[in-house]
Amino acid sequence: MTDITGKRVAFLLTDGFEDSELTSPWEAVTEVGATAVLVSPADGRVSGKNGHEQTVDLTVGSADASEFDALVLPGGVVNADNLRMDETAVSFARDFFAQHKPVGVICHGAWILADADVLGDRTITSYPSLKTDLRNAGANWVDEEVVVDAGLVSSRTPDDLPAFNAKVLEEIAEGAHADQTV
Amino acid sequence: MTDITGKRVAFLLTDGFEDSELTSPWEAVTEVGATAVLVSPADGRVSGKNGHEQTVDLTVGSADASEFDALVLPGGVVNADNLRMDETAVSFARDFFAQHKPVGVICHGAWILADADVLGDRTITSYPSLKTDLRNAGANWVDEEVVVDAGLVSSRTPDDLPAFNAKVLEEIAEGAHADQTV
Repeated sequence: MTDITGKRVAFLLTDGFEDSELTSPWEAVTEVGATAVLVSPADGRVSGKNGHEQTVDLTVGSADASEFDALVLPGGVVNADNLRMDETAVSFARDFFAQHKPVGVICHGAWILADADVLGDRTITSYPSLKTDLRNAGANWVDEEVVVDAGLVSSRTPDDLPAFNAKVLEEIAEGAHADQTV
Repeated sequence: MTDITGKRVAFLLTDGFEDSELTSPWEAVTEVGATAVLVSPADGRVSGKNGHEQTVDLTVGSADASEFDALVLPGGVVNADNLRMDETAVSFARDFFAQHKPVGVICHGAWILADADVLGDRTITSYPSLKTDLRNAGANWVDEEVVVDAGLVSSRTPDDLPAFNAKVLEEIAEGAHADQTV
């Protein structure tokens, strides 16, 4: 089993996230020793589309990517559509690429990466509705259960979570990837 | 008052549309003599995000743009996110551009136009979350109540509906626009 004891993983999201895309990777990273931190634009609690509620640990305005080892972006169309309009959230996501740190993104979570302008020549998958947007943002979009491209791990839907979680853990264990960049 | 008697206007949408972005332009075009037709991927009824239900008049698979004078694309993030994955819907929307016919699009409704690949060098507004996607699709995105570009009418949110409806009626009355093209 991968040991990522002491690593700090930020989960960036807002209301309307796909519940299992928060709870499942959260459990996966904490089970093997990492600290998971819920980062969101506003303080208080966030609600998933299916009712899961969780306390925000840190507002994105107070968060600094340099204090984390990896980022996870859950999906949910309403969450992802809103999150990408928050410039501080876009900038926080971009900083993980600038710092060559692993990023896991699933479902609609990838929209914010188009705003962060970090997808040029990167291979990625997502919920299929994002295909054109991610290709237009410069990505090589493919339809696969999980895609790993130099520290960028992506999947399509909650059905892909087992494969997604396994690859996210691997990439976090490996650490920095020079080709994960802006 | 604009008279568009005898014109046929297709409203293309699926479940999760922004209710007022269907009902308000529908009333505006029918009040001045046009026939409005609800076109959707599946037969039966569609439901708006706030509970408005309406019967589908025509499935998009049976619809032909040549039998209509204009297209309206309401928003609602869930509607727009799903509709763009339906290739027949994308093709139906694209045909209005190929036939130089007026298209009104509001809020999240514009995503399907990225998939239809008809936005190169066109000036458009939308719900702000789509800004990057529409720019990456080649559009000149602006933040205005209503934008008219050669038969393409666009607005941002339900607050813009009075201005949107007025310009949609004008463009329908004018008829074909050579620069509305693919």
